[in-house]
Amino acid sequence: MKDGWIYRSGIASSVYSCGLKKTGQYDLALLRFPKPACWTGCFTQNRCAAAPIIYAKSLLKQGKDVRLLLINSGNANAATGREGLDDIKFLTKRIEALSGIDSEEIIVSSTGVIGEPLPKERISAALPELLQRSSGFEDSVADAIMTTDTKRKISELSFYSHGQLFHIWAMAKGSGMIFPHLATMLVFIITDFPLSEWKGNLLKDVVDESFNKITVDGDMSTNDSVFLFSIGENAKANKTDFKDALMSVAKELSEKIVEDGEGAHKIVNVVVKNASGVEDAKKAASKIANSELVKTAIYGEDPNWGRVYAALGASGASFDPLKVSISFDDKPACRNGKKAKDYSEEALSKIMKHNRFSIIIDLNAGDASYNIFTTDLSYEYIKINASYRS
Amino acid sequence: MKDGWIYRSGIASSVYSCGLKKTGQYDLALLRFPKPACWTGCFTQNRCAAAPIIYAKSLLKQGKDVRLLLINSGNANAATGREGLDDIKFLTKRIEALSGIDSEEIIVSSTGVIGEPLPKERISAALPELLQRSSGFEDSVADAIMTTDTKRKISELSFYSHGQLFHIWAMAKGSGMIFPHLATMLVFIITDFPLSEWKGNLLKDVVDESFNKITVDGDMSTNDSVFLFSIGENAKANKTDFKDALMSVAKELSEKIVEDGEGAHKIVNVVVKNASGVEDAKKAASKIANSELVKTAIYGEDPNWGRVYAALGASGASFDPLKVSISFDDKPACRNGKKAKDYSEEALSKIMKHNRFSIIIDLNAGDASYNIFTTDLSYEYIKINASYRS
Repeated sequence: MKDGWIYRSGIASSVYSCGLKKTGQYDLALLRFPKPACWTGCFTQNRCAAAPIIYAKSLLKQGKDVRLLLINSGNANAATGREGLDDIKFLTKRIEALSGIDSEEIIVSSTGVIGEPLPKERISAALPELLQRSSGFEDSVADAIMTTDTKRKISELSFYSHGQLFHIWAMAKGSGMIFPHLATMLVFIITDFPLSEWKGNLLKDVVDESFNKITVDGDMSTNDSVFLFSIGENAKANKTDFKDALMSVAKELSEKIVEDGEGAHKIVNVVVKNASGVEDAKKAASKIANSELVKTAIYGEDPNWGRVYAALGASGASFDPLKVSISFDDKPACRNGKKAKDYSEEALSKIMKHNRFSIIIDLNAGDASYNIFTTDLSYEYIKINASYRS
Repeated sequence: MKDGWIYRSGIASSVYSCGLKKTGQYDLALLRFPKPACWTGCFTQNRCAAAPIIYAKSLLKQGKDVRLLLINSGNANAATGREGLDDIKFLTKRIEALSGIDSEEIIVSSTGVIGEPLPKERISAALPELLQRSSGFEDSVADAIMTTDTKRKISELSFYSHGQLFHIWAMAKGSGMIFPHLATMLVFIITDFPLSEWKGNLLKDVVDESFNKITVDGDMSTNDSVFLFSIGENAKANKTDFKDALMSVAKELSEKIVEDGEGAHKIVNVVVKNASGVEDAKKAASKIANSELVKTAIYGEDPNWGRVYAALGASGASFDPLKVSISFDDKPACRNGKKAKDYSEEALSKIMKHNRFSIIIDLNAGDASYNIFTTDLSYEYIKINASYRS
């Protein structure tokens, strides 16, 4: 604890703009816990994982608690070779020198352009002021971690367990390079619920049901991370209560990410049901949710279910094409592999004008199901991504 | 043989417009061989294969020669259930009644919208005139099989084998739903080179090196077909000479398809080399060639090699991220997993302004390689596909 630091919502925080973003917006955030935080994380499965991912995983292995979190946007510190790790160590050592906090109790997390060396001197120069200032967990922290995001993404929640009140505070960033596992996103979740050994699986279970069920463009980032920190004291508490609360926060944030998908106007829940197994349902939902032809049809508000059917066939899932039914919300499009008898172009078009709807694919092959939230593929997506770096 | 039919380039042909295309352009083509043609085919691996695919495969199994080919555009006869097959049988029986040609010696091939019943009566009404008229293998036939294609795609070639002159005539359609295996495309290749038992593998080998190495949007169609017909008489001939000639025709047509990719301005050859195995090289090339982020960067002429690196990491291929090098043509972008020391933004930007260039990924892990031709993802792609059906 340091005199003068203000702790609110579980943490003390400060933000800064050191010029990593050309817009001059906040690009650095420092989060400090009131006590060493027990933590865990889920990370990208991208083989070209960025330096901060490699570093965080090595810390997790060591099993030390965490005192401080430095997050930057505007540079991903990805594809930066061994120097990327050296730069992280340089910064954590610098914080140690300035604050007395052990460098191995500091996590660094980055998002932004891939392939540019981290401007460590610029970040380093901002550290004294970042460590000096402090406020609670405020909106500006969620702003400082954004890149192409248009909206800040935060979620807070309180819940009782064994008669005691606990809290979860969380923030996320992400709007492109979004696809399991994981999306290009950083998620930070802090709780005063006491966490112990079972924390690892619990987070993975929750991530599988939330952040791993969204896609914007089928691309997996080098920097995806979901961090969970606990500053809870020993207390009688029920992990199911916590898991429910955590799931609620994770689903809220993952919806916010897909809602803010690059160029997205619509959120569509692709539901594959009655598959012969979950893997088949997943393959099918994933192929449909990432099909450019399906996504442009959603953008064009065209109930072109034939493209859904074609993508399903290309998914590698196992099913009988003559038993497939497809509907948009509750309106039938295809039944038994062909146009439904009660097909109504008007009714389907009406559903596609909504900002949210479901495409439901019934394989009639078993009882497994899976769903993924996707977006439309629009002119704006192209615009954002044809010019993002420059 | 029928009096009055004109055979040129190996076939007699006629075209018609029966209103399957809203534009009123040719949508029916009839091709007739001067003698029963020995044939083979490669077909889509889409599980929801269209009725004409199922029908052609059953004919191939029977092993009968082919006399006549009816091709329509504007309707794919896909997702049409058992009625789709009944409609094909109705049409082939009708041709049998009109021409005396055994219905089992007739192939029907379709491309167009998925999920609408084939307007068989309209096609049937056109048959007498289609069977009456005749000209050689002319440009209009290649036009009649087009959908969103903007250019007709034909290829002709002559070659000598054992001192004898042989010919190949071929045409293709395809510009969207293009990805191995196969693209949304129909390809018809006719030769007077005599074919016998080895024909099956030979065609597959050629298709793997040509049509299976192009992608426009990562989607696999329900109707993809490559047909190869031989009307050659017994003759001494060398199958290697034929394979070389066939490869040349197949590569020319596959380049024409990707050049005419929906909304495409650029053709980029994604080359993965020095992989530890061909499967790894293929996974990597395929993921990069289909990444929306890579394709929008190509459209924006932005040498954002970090997206190539990220897509590579997400591909599932096995390699050491710190040994990866990436170049655009001969200009280095990334070496040993980070920005190349001799990186020149200017030199790379200059390459990206070209209509054709290569992105070369060196994994430094072995000696296997694979390449795929892809296109940029543009506003025009969205425009074409947000409104194609209507």
